[in-house]
Amino acid sequence: MNEQEILTSFLADFIQELVFNGVKDVVISPGSRSTPLAMMIAEHPDLAYHINIDERSAAFFALGMAKQTRKPVALLCTSGTAAANYYPAIVEAKISRVPLIVLTADRPHELRDIGAPQSIDQINLYGKHVKWFVEMSIPDPNEELHYFVRTTAARAVNLSLQAPAGPVHLNFPFREPLIPRLEPSPFEETKQSVKSSQGKLILSNGELERICMDLETQPKGLIICGVIDEPDFAQAVLTLSERLGYPIIADPLSQLRSGLHSSEAIIDNYDSFLKDGKYEEKLSPEVIIRFGAMPVSKPLTLFLKKLKKVDHYIIDSGSGWRDPIKMGTQMIHADEILFCEGISSRIKNEPNNKWLQIWQQLNRNTRKIVTKTIEDVQELDEGRVVLELTKLLPNNSTLFVGNSMPIRDVDTFFHNNQKNIRVMANRGANGIDGVVSSAIGASVYGENLFLIIGDLSFFHDLNGLLAAKMHHLNITIIVINNNGGGIFSFLPQASSSKNFENLFGTPIDVEFEYAVKMYGGNYKKVTNWNEFQSSINRAIETSGLNVIEVPTNREKNVQTHRNMWNHVSQEKSKLLTGDTLC
Amino acid sequence: MNEQEILTSFLADFIQELVFNGVKDVVISPGSRSTPLAMMIAEHPDLAYHINIDERSAAFFALGMAKQTRKPVALLCTSGTAAANYYPAIVEAKISRVPLIVLTADRPHELRDIGAPQSIDQINLYGKHVKWFVEMSIPDPNEELHYFVRTTAARAVNLSLQAPAGPVHLNFPFREPLIPRLEPSPFEETKQSVKSSQGKLILSNGELERICMDLETQPKGLIICGVIDEPDFAQAVLTLSERLGYPIIADPLSQLRSGLHSSEAIIDNYDSFLKDGKYEEKLSPEVIIRFGAMPVSKPLTLFLKKLKKVDHYIIDSGSGWRDPIKMGTQMIHADEILFCEGISSRIKNEPNNKWLQIWQQLNRNTRKIVTKTIEDVQELDEGRVVLELTKLLPNNSTLFVGNSMPIRDVDTFFHNNQKNIRVMANRGANGIDGVVSSAIGASVYGENLFLIIGDLSFFHDLNGLLAAKMHHLNITIIVINNNGGGIFSFLPQASSSKNFENLFGTPIDVEFEYAVKMYGGNYKKVTNWNEFQSSINRAIETSGLNVIEVPTNREKNVQTHRNMWNHVSQEKSKLLTGDTLC
Repeated sequence: MNEQEILTSFLADFIQELVFNGVKDVVISPGSRSTPLAMMIAEHPDLAYHINIDERSAAFFALGMAKQTRKPVALLCTSGTAAANYYPAIVEAKISRVPLIVLTADRPHELRDIGAPQSIDQINLYGKHVKWFVEMSIPDPNEELHYFVRTTAARAVNLSLQAPAGPVHLNFPFREPLIPRLEPSPFEETKQSVKSSQGKLILSNGELERICMDLETQPKGLIICGVIDEPDFAQAVLTLSERLGYPIIADPLSQLRSGLHSSEAIIDNYDSFLKDGKYEEKLSPEVIIRFGAMPVSKPLTLFLKKLKKVDHYIIDSGSGWRDPIKMGTQMIHADEILFCEGISSRIKNEPNNKWLQIWQQLNRNTRKIVTKTIEDVQELDEGRVVLELTKLLPNNSTLFVGNSMPIRDVDTFFHNNQKNIRVMANRGANGIDGVVSSAIGASVYGENLFLIIGDLSFFHDLNGLLAAKMHHLNITIIVINNNGGGIFSFLPQASSSKNFENLFGTPIDVEFEYAVKMYGGNYKKVTNWNEFQSSINRAIETSGLNVIEVPTNREKNVQTHRNMWNHVSQEKSKLLTGDTLC
Repeated sequence: MNEQEILTSFLADFIQELVFNGVKDVVISPGSRSTPLAMMIAEHPDLAYHINIDERSAAFFALGMAKQTRKPVALLCTSGTAAANYYPAIVEAKISRVPLIVLTADRPHELRDIGAPQSIDQINLYGKHVKWFVEMSIPDPNEELHYFVRTTAARAVNLSLQAPAGPVHLNFPFREPLIPRLEPSPFEETKQSVKSSQGKLILSNGELERICMDLETQPKGLIICGVIDEPDFAQAVLTLSERLGYPIIADPLSQLRSGLHSSEAIIDNYDSFLKDGKYEEKLSPEVIIRFGAMPVSKPLTLFLKKLKKVDHYIIDSGSGWRDPIKMGTQMIHADEILFCEGISSRIKNEPNNKWLQIWQQLNRNTRKIVTKTIEDVQELDEGRVVLELTKLLPNNSTLFVGNSMPIRDVDTFFHNNQKNIRVMANRGANGIDGVVSSAIGASVYGENLFLIIGDLSFFHDLNGLLAAKMHHLNITIIVINNNGGGIFSFLPQASSSKNFENLFGTPIDVEFEYAVKMYGGNYKKVTNWNEFQSSINRAIETSGLNVIEVPTNREKNVQTHRNMWNHVSQEKSKLLTGDTLC
């Protein structure tokens, strides 16, 4: 074999095995050193490739696509700082457990650390933020190497999926010439492959029985579902709740607030009614069973932190230690669905309906007040955007939610509904970066994609919009523009820093209309609720990129929230001290 | 002391010592966990702080400022992916030896790796790409800690400057509450400080004499100056050249092509006349003395790689191993200026003027042809942009040059001139990322800042423009828009890949006018050379952000370059085979 054939055969083995193990999408950023991989990936009949120029956006785009499809997505870039631009999305993917297969091209050994252009030290470039790093060999006809190449591809896919899912990094040194041989197709030969499967963690019968016995002695329990996105989890946890009579506190990212399943036990207004920190003794459980990453609600966190002598189970299929409130008493590393099923099938007691009813009634009453208070706000308001949007979203939608204020508003104002709405956010590291690209990546295989995002976060990843234009994707972006860092207005520095507006408020005073036009999108800045409703409805019917900007006011937003919390607090006081509950 | 006083005193010590050791600028990206450092930095009377929302841009902005001032610039961001966004600029700073002091806020130990929001593993976040990493302690009143805090600041500044200069990273865990006490000023007390100084590497007399003896036996020598930006280097190397009679091959980033110094020995057209690879025996030196990072010119690289039996000195004050062509025979770790002076003062021979004259005449003739050929190009052309710009640039300018095609065109078309023009580029890792921010950062303390950049690179860091708007900076950006990756048209894949346009050409088809308008800049797309000239002249007189777009054509650009190389090759052939040289 000549050099070109060696290169081609080496990469054909690698790519073929990625495909064999289920990779369907590769996000490619243009570059020179990555030429052989790029050209061959483009040639494979079963791979879709997606060009994304800015590597930071590219990696977040891949992350969004992997979230949406629940499959590993591969990434390819050239050597140098290109690869360093992947870092934020890789960090996010590691914590939020999203499978990514990061392929970086590199200079060969003889060009490293001697001042050659575009050469940086790429060995372990992402440190502890990837699950696996492999320095690939230079392509070589050695027979053993074929096995190495194929199994490295198989293992990369396997590891990226094995709970906790996450990113892996393979670094490919290439020598010139970089052009592979594409005629005849290098993928035609059938080759030996290794298929890998991932098992799930399950507790022993003995352990499940022990836990059941404990739970049966504790009729007042709470199930808490944080960030979790497993298609069969909703049914499993609802059955568990029914057997135990425990209400389910459901974060918007638990995927429990939407869908045709029963919503009777699902508590979705806790963020509002726990806010005042009063009458907690009436709501105190004896036991807590928690699934998924910690919910976003701070009032919930503070409520939980006071429950000192409560048995607190944390179930985690990814064997993490998800206990930022440091209240866990039982850390259970087991698949969440298998755990629910294991307990549900063993519980024999009748549930305590009164306990459940208190939570249900409080939740219902709060929902009424929250809805009423916010619907009374006539001017444009951040909370009401979420409430209105929930009504308008079509069935089978994905709602991608930006960090900082939007996720908190969605927590408060996105209530139980019967539609099929998948809610996503980058809640691994909670960055405001890369959100646009993640949502656009999720739109590739998701219908009716809506992103709700703040102005700073929108600005941070404006480059992400290019992918929507280049790939003719359909997405509607609702930009809540309070001209700066709105969340800081809720923090102590709002009153104590004379440099507040410079350091934290940071108004950027830009008209996003220009950017949207540049990327060929439809843009509308709304001035009232009628316009908001008609803009959303128009966007639903208009393909391509739609951006709806909602100008709001940071100070008014703080006021509206505080006003609503006051109303809720009064109602809660009536309910929990009065005779309305029996 | 209460908690707030402990926090305040701890940070006052740290900041005071940074200032005492020469830090004047901090680039801050807004965030919550970094509140104590941000508020106190804003309070210090001798620190300027610069808000930059997008951390990727922020770090490149700091890099540009540090390049311009040749002083360390500090960076501050909050915990999480914010810090990961610094990575590309840190990688660039490490290789291009720019002093940065990276300060990241972090969660305290008890909130790490337990699923707390916005917590990622920040220990050694930048791996081998920083010179030093320190995990700071939690603020504490312990007396010994004061010494630790102050000396860590002093050492950070010192290390960032010590050759090779580069980035250092300090990670600050903070507990809530995050608000420091600002009244009375925490900086009023005079405190003990440590001032550090950095020595330079100098060879022994014996070594210098040995080298002199060697050089005196080799009358045909070449001095090659790559990327180097030391104010006194020009005079030192010109004296060396005069003593030895060696021509100086001067990369545009050597800072030798501009200025009032003699330019007689400075060869600036080698990229064009070495291109054809002919008559190299007539140009072959016996010895090479090379300074700075490897020059950008590929023809030069290929020429040098053929000089197998030539003594090849590489002088590096930063103790690197800058030899991508693998031709070094003497690796000398010594300060470049001290080396030049040490040799110049010891040389006794008379130089070989004939050898110098061959190079000078070839350079002069080539310059004429290059200039004439390009000036004859009537349509807008990438090479001619540089030629025209060189004429128009005012005295005391900084020309920041984008990677990929612009730096190559500057190499070919930016010729010796008497103006004071500093030329900068991000030539550590040669990324197309962060160039806009680096140039804008350089504009903070530089007058007449011009950036010449390709469309993909401009797109990659469009966010960088916000800083120009927010901080009312003056910069003129010339965007060479060939709608895609122009450099790939010079590479083999241009003819061999059916997916070429998708994978490498990558036209993005956007009207940058929108982005420029969004950031409050003046925009002009020129259609001919008169408009180009008048636009540059107008920009010189107009403060703020000016963007001049020059639409060019990728195929035509390749043709023009090839046409020019043909002319140069013919002329070289005449000169080196004929009797014109005696």
